[in-house]
Amino acid sequence: MTTASFVLTTFCQSRPGIVAALSTAIFEMGCNIDDLQQFDDHETDQFFARIAFAAVDGDITKEAVLARLQPDMERFGMTWKLRDADARRRVLLLASKFDHCLADLLYRWRIGELPMEVVGVVSNHPRTTYPNLSFRDTEFRHLPVTRDTKAEQEAQLLKIIEDEKIDLVVLARYMQILSDDLSRKLLGRCINIHHSFLPGFKGAKPYHQAYVRGVKLIGATAHYVTSDLDEGPIIEQDIERISHRDRPEELVRKGRDIERRVLARAVRSHLEDRVLLNGMRTIVFPD
Amino acid sequence: MTTASFVLTTFCQSRPGIVAALSTAIFEMGCNIDDLQQFDDHETDQFFARIAFAAVDGDITKEAVLARLQPDMERFGMTWKLRDADARRRVLLLASKFDHCLADLLYRWRIGELPMEVVGVVSNHPRTTYPNLSFRDTEFRHLPVTRDTKAEQEAQLLKIIEDEKIDLVVLARYMQILSDDLSRKLLGRCINIHHSFLPGFKGAKPYHQAYVRGVKLIGATAHYVTSDLDEGPIIEQDIERISHRDRPEELVRKGRDIERRVLARAVRSHLEDRVLLNGMRTIVFPD
Amino acid sequence: MTTASFVLTTFCQSRPGIVAALSTAIFEMGCNIDDLQQFDDHETDQFFARIAFAAVDGDITKEAVLARLQPDMERFGMTWKLRDADARRRVLLLASKFDHCLADLLYRWRIGELPMEVVGVVSNHPRTTYPNLSFRDTEFRHLPVTRDTKAEQEAQLLKIIEDEKIDLVVLARYMQILSDDLSRKLLGRCINIHHSFLPGFKGAKPYHQAYVRGVKLIGATAHYVTSDLDEGPIIEQDIERISHRDRPEELVRKGRDIERRVLARAVRSHLEDRVLLNGMRTIVFPD
Amino acid sequence: MTTASFVLTTFCQSRPGIVAALSTAIFEMGCNIDDLQQFDDHETDQFFARIAFAAVDGDITKEAVLARLQPDMERFGMTWKLRDADARRRVLLLASKFDHCLADLLYRWRIGELPMEVVGVVSNHPRTTYPNLSFRDTEFRHLPVTRDTKAEQEAQLLKIIEDEKIDLVVLARYMQILSDDLSRKLLGRCINIHHSFLPGFKGAKPYHQAYVRGVKLIGATAHYVTSDLDEGPIIEQDIERISHRDRPEELVRKGRDIERRVLARAVRSHLEDRVLLNGMRTIVFPD
Repeated sequence: MTTASFVLTTFCQSRPGIVAALSTAIFEMGCNIDDLQQFDDHETDQFFARIAFAAVDGDITKEAVLARLQPDMERFGMTWKLRDADARRRVLLLASKFDHCLADLLYRWRIGELPMEVVGVVSNHPRTTYPNLSFRDTEFRHLPVTRDTKAEQEAQLLKIIEDEKIDLVVLARYMQILSDDLSRKLLGRCINIHHSFLPGFKGAKPYHQAYVRGVKLIGATAHYVTSDLDEGPIIEQDIERISHRDRPEELVRKGRDIERRVLARAVRSHLEDRVLLNGMRTIVFPD
Repeated sequence: MTTASFVLTTFCQSRPGIVAALSTAIFEMGCNIDDLQQFDDHETDQFFARIAFAAVDGDITKEAVLARLQPDMERFGMTWKLRDADARRRVLLLASKFDHCLADLLYRWRIGELPMEVVGVVSNHPRTTYPNLSFRDTEFRHLPVTRDTKAEQEAQLLKIIEDEKIDLVVLARYMQILSDDLSRKLLGRCINIHHSFLPGFKGAKPYHQAYVRGVKLIGATAHYVTSDLDEGPIIEQDIERISHRDRPEELVRKGRDIERRVLARAVRSHLEDRVLLNGMRTIVFPD
Repeated sequence: MTTASFVLTTFCQSRPGIVAALSTAIFEMGCNIDDLQQFDDHETDQFFARIAFAAVDGDITKEAVLARLQPDMERFGMTWKLRDADARRRVLLLASKFDHCLADLLYRWRIGELPMEVVGVVSNHPRTTYPNLSFRDTEFRHLPVTRDTKAEQEAQLLKIIEDEKIDLVVLARYMQILSDDLSRKLLGRCINIHHSFLPGFKGAKPYHQAYVRGVKLIGATAHYVTSDLDEGPIIEQDIERISHRDRPEELVRKGRDIERRVLARAVRSHLEDRVLLNGMRTIVFPD
Repeated sequence: MTTASFVLTTFCQSRPGIVAALSTAIFEMGCNIDDLQQFDDHETDQFFARIAFAAVDGDITKEAVLARLQPDMERFGMTWKLRDADARRRVLLLASKFDHCLADLLYRWRIGELPMEVVGVVSNHPRTTYPNLSFRDTEFRHLPVTRDTKAEQEAQLLKIIEDEKIDLVVLARYMQILSDDLSRKLLGRCINIHHSFLPGFKGAKPYHQAYVRGVKLIGATAHYVTSDLDEGPIIEQDIERISHRDRPEELVRKGRDIERRVLARAVRSHLEDRVLLNGMRTIVFPD
């Protein structure tokens, strides 16, 4: 019998006694807190927490935990998620022509570095676009899209997400803009990598814009997708130093390295329930 | 009447119920937890926490808080410190010939960036060594030292530390090695900046060693002083990229920038009670 | 007799034979090249170079060097500057209320880290604004400015620049916008520090904008002043990682550290003739 | 007919006239210098340069270039290499159990990011060790090794290197120590990635050493292999920030990211002839 371990993420209006109530409940159900991180947003007066805890001497079911926490949760008006810490999230990867982020996430998954199950890969380009990638037993689906078929293609996409019980959709350089409707449906469970240091260079060809502007740093941003293109809550960012020697194509090359590490970090944070939405911002509890 | 706010740092053998007990006690004495960070070292099975909390509706004395927490603290066998969050630490700065760290800390203190009171500056060099620095109303003491007078000089130093009720001694490029005895007496309240990326280049002239070795990065390390020279618990480190163009004197120059920012960050973390000793390592709760 | 050493910076339409002509001329006048860095902008087909060279066996006057280089320079249609490598640039520092950049540059100058002569400090605030700073023998001038007196104040400023033969004006968090006219007159010899990662957050309160947007990195940009506010050619940029815990005032604090190191690096690059203008971009030859 | 372009790397005792002679020769043979970078080591009085140049109006053979440069090269006593800029280097990758560096280099090669031809992969582990990697038409060779068969295995390795005319051997986390003899034979054409920030933690399990020491940064170093284990000339280094939360296995994970990017950068610099040996140090001309 394996010890049951859980991750609780929650937020509510801040008031005294929340940590006392939750930690007492966790103690009384025979669990030990492995990690508790909290954040009080003094501007909005909201309380946010991530609590990882595990049964000490035996087993406890998720249902039992839920039943025990329920009254306190309701009393404080909490929004919350409870996850079995060992349950692996079901992930769908979306890609287009460039496959560096896709290849990177697949590799990290294969060697067991990311706690997820890649349930499928969807591309608007055919399988032959990726001669260097082996998908093995992961299903590859080609869902071509044109302006006329966008609604239909998104319906197919949504059906896959629902049928496969997808927890997280990762836009791994998927170069299609999701409709407002789909963005809304996936709020908080769809991560995009924007190949630029937001909000520096919006629009097309950010690396070329960076070149023309003569910046000395380029960056990338991973964020949750919202209907406001490239403006969703930021999860992770990073940069790399460049010089006058770097032509746009070299910025693109250097950008690939930033993109894949920023996206991988953001996906990891999400998979470990470290990211909480706080309006248009995020709280990312450090690992 | 200002609201009373406190920072509790504590550690003990890990066991279930600690967070529940502490947070319940804090709640019951009419306080709200602003920030709770914990860490369980699974290797040594030790629990560490930093809890910032404040009285909600009124005032509460430090004595009242102590009285309320005492039973729980004893029950769990905790080692702990409780500090009034608004109390500024009394700091003594020690320097030698190079004054970049000294100048930097004084500046940050003057503009109110570091929550401390610089009670005095001690140097083994005379006041004229620092023509560019204004100490204003901070007392400057010249305590020269030779091999023969080291014991005596350290006795003077210790007397200052005791008389002035110094909370923290900062070796701001103080180039004298403290005796084992003094190091022991100041354990956990004396921070040194080692002008090298420990434990890469021990001994003299680390920048010259780095040059000879042809490294591409140089760094600095801020650590608590122990009797084992340059080997105390690390609080903060940082690096800067260098190239084949950098001669030793340029490494020294670039090193100055790293040293002063690494030392300032370490001092800040200590002043905010973010650093807990965990054997020869530290826990640094992020700000 | 000290050996004469020079730095030549130049640019022209790219064509074969330029390096051959210049290096041959330098060789034939009895000099050795210590450092030659070139850059060909393949987009605009422009050649840029920085050549540091010194007389080998004896002395050579700047006039003699000029006379020898002149014909080649004219043949290639070069724009160029020749500077005595040991001549220290005359610098004017402009500041407003916040003095962290000012204090930092003064300190670096005092310890001999920056090859410049600070001829004066100008502020739109009175001397009492800077109780922590010692200007010693550097003249401090208070030039207050209002909307109505702006033209007059700038005329005073320009007179100082001309009378004192200022080579470089540094806006060390000088919070006044220079007029188009003055900006044009100072093109390529006036450096500003923009307390934001350009062009991310234009306008007022960039740190507050960064907070609202929830970015995970903040930065600063040093650039040459042009009439297009905050859009001049970028010399240097850097960033620092932040988190959801950082409130706007902490971004301001962290920003100070970035600003002063970015500005100091840009000033150093300029003082060493490492920065060449390439339209709205810069070439910064590494030190 | 494609325009011929070349990269010349050279070093010799420093003296006036070298750049003049080389650039004049290049000009006279109808070529234009695209990029010239030089470095004078004032300590050893050695001159180092990398010159990229191309025929302007037509074709020129490598033999013709050699013939033209030969007299100057001999006059200055230069050590030099001339390479056709478009010629792709023949690379042999060596790996052991962990394949993150191997996978990364193969991916970068496949997408055309690294100017090389991966001629083969050699491992001391069998093909089944890498179920996630596709080697396609690159030959995989399993060369097992024990203490007793080391000499024989290295003889096989050397035979492959000679038969396949290998320009560069990359130890992509190849966990065998090359013999002194083989190290000497491969001097300057064999790159290793040391999974630690040299010379901080020598010996086994550097990440575990870093954990025990409580460092706040971990790093990796790419260097040329010499008979002095882990002490060869450093080409590239990088670090990542860690915290008290990171257990040894997380340092290993974070280390993988550093290792692969440091190794890829070092390999790129070598492939582009940007790295020159300067005794036990390197000159790395920036790209």
